[in-house]
Amino acid sequence: MKVLITGGAGFLGQRLARKLIDKGTLRLQGGDWPIHQIDLLDVVAADTLGDARVRCLVGDIADPQVLRSAISRDTAVVFHLAAVVSGQAEADFDLGMRINFDASRALLETCRTLGHAPRVVFTSSVAVYGGALPATVRDDTALNPQSSYGTQKAMAELLLADYTRRGFVDGRVLRLPTISVRPGRPNAAASSFASGIVREPLHGEAATCPVAPDTRLWLLSPRRAVEALVAGCELDAAALADRRPINLPGVSVSAGAMVDALREVAGDAVASRVAWQPDERIERIVGSWPGCWDTGRAERLGLCGDEDFRAIVRAYITDDLTASTQ
Amino acid sequence: MKVLITGGAGFLGQRLARKLIDKGTLRLQGGDWPIHQIDLLDVVAADTLGDARVRCLVGDIADPQVLRSAISRDTAVVFHLAAVVSGQAEADFDLGMRINFDASRALLETCRTLGHAPRVVFTSSVAVYGGALPATVRDDTALNPQSSYGTQKAMAELLLADYTRRGFVDGRVLRLPTISVRPGRPNAAASSFASGIVREPLHGEAATCPVAPDTRLWLLSPRRAVEALVAGCELDAAALADRRPINLPGVSVSAGAMVDALREVAGDAVASRVAWQPDERIERIVGSWPGCWDTGRAERLGLCGDEDFRAIVRAYITDDLTASTQ
Repeated sequence: MKVLITGGAGFLGQRLARKLIDKGTLRLQGGDWPIHQIDLLDVVAADTLGDARVRCLVGDIADPQVLRSAISRDTAVVFHLAAVVSGQAEADFDLGMRINFDASRALLETCRTLGHAPRVVFTSSVAVYGGALPATVRDDTALNPQSSYGTQKAMAELLLADYTRRGFVDGRVLRLPTISVRPGRPNAAASSFASGIVREPLHGEAATCPVAPDTRLWLLSPRRAVEALVAGCELDAAALADRRPINLPGVSVSAGAMVDALREVAGDAVASRVAWQPDERIERIVGSWPGCWDTGRAERLGLCGDEDFRAIVRAYITDDLTASTQ
Repeated sequence: MKVLITGGAGFLGQRLARKLIDKGTLRLQGGDWPIHQIDLLDVVAADTLGDARVRCLVGDIADPQVLRSAISRDTAVVFHLAAVVSGQAEADFDLGMRINFDASRALLETCRTLGHAPRVVFTSSVAVYGGALPATVRDDTALNPQSSYGTQKAMAELLLADYTRRGFVDGRVLRLPTISVRPGRPNAAASSFASGIVREPLHGEAATCPVAPDTRLWLLSPRRAVEALVAGCELDAAALADRRPINLPGVSVSAGAMVDALREVAGDAVASRVAWQPDERIERIVGSWPGCWDTGRAERLGLCGDEDFRAIVRAYITDDLTASTQ
């Protein structure tokens, strides 16, 4: 069977592909199915990771023709990671609608035509919540997005649930905490700093934190995110019942405590490279996301987060920093 | 200024037009604005109610060109009532998506091009709720639709909220209880019987109730629905803050109690024309809607429901039965 990863050139798509190569099979409907092919679809050419099973597809994810060529009868699983990030979706409403909503819809529609209800693992976001929130956010807390990104993700979640209910696909929605520490360079996500204030100092560079030290974030390491994507894919449909979205367990930590953890792990000199420079636009978006969560359902389903933020910093040093400096 | 009513040939659209003609003005941004024109857009020709201000537009609501011809710079208010009903949206997924979602999106997009953020009053439905529900449903209870109709309405609600937040429109979402008693003939709505079991017996005809007597419904008379549409349009944006959807107050009543009320108002002979004949498909859809509500917010905003189901039966006799038999 074949696996498609949209956003396959992105860092999460690449790591997921690596994980699937190493794993070799996916547990679906009671059996372990060998993965014969992994298609990485993206707007730029993805690294095929030196494995003959990996195929790179370049195209516009919102183009139904591209999707039809990427999804075929032997596609059993789709990991739909492709998205325009929050800051970009807020700056360019039409682009966000096209990639975050229209492309998701076209992908579901293409899967529907297969007739065998492929598994679709859709990554959503804490940005579907907002406004006056309960003290603790749960999987079934009301969606009330305060950004176009969150709105587009929430609409796609609802659509995926209906496609699943109708038997067009077997969908799973994993609401990812903010991924930290992302490797590479800053991006247009409002939460980009949540990686930058650790990554840049560890690389000897200055970083600015655009939110107040007491702003709470909800974080997950790339390592745990990839594990959760695979586990979410392998979950029995019966265990999910009529609630397809799952909030993944994260670490709830303030921006100030993040820098403290960086200091603990990497020392004063590194932590002192972070400057505090509030940016109202980013504070408004990030501040509308909840800080406190009940992720008991995810944990009962076997989806795990990181131990604490120090563990996240250490995971970055092991998985990325050491690799990139070798 | 101009008012557009989509679904303007429908019974609610027609009553709303009549109400606006009688009223002559709408209170917007602190002033009473005279209504110079009321456009009734529908797939069939609407009755222009003998008033020179009323214009009838025939076209496909999902066709952006039709919308562009229906919405112009002096359109200050749009009542978006056009929809494919729940039973039809469940039977024909693509049609439901096209009318209930795509047309709503195209309408919002057309309004956006005006640049002056017209008021858009969107009618949504209790069908946006479902699954395991809290004892009492409030405006901010999580959306969890269990039908394609509910999904499409929920997605359109979210989109309207984002268009409002961005200042493209000034949107209001009124979640209507099931309208009862609708005049005319049965339709493809799963809730069609909620009118039929009163209307048909009062007209001397037999009616069947497809749900068990203890199935609870949440009902609003056409008279109160039209009043709420106008009041919802005239609400100050500031009073709605970041929560645009409002659950309108309804009467919570079981199917059995509806027939009891009919018996009280119209006598044994009339009530005995109702036969009980369960239909699993309809029971499943209607059973997923909640029965108990907290509509305190709507009431504080000045939006009223009916006193009880007897009042709803009497309103039908006054507004429709007497008129149709004269």
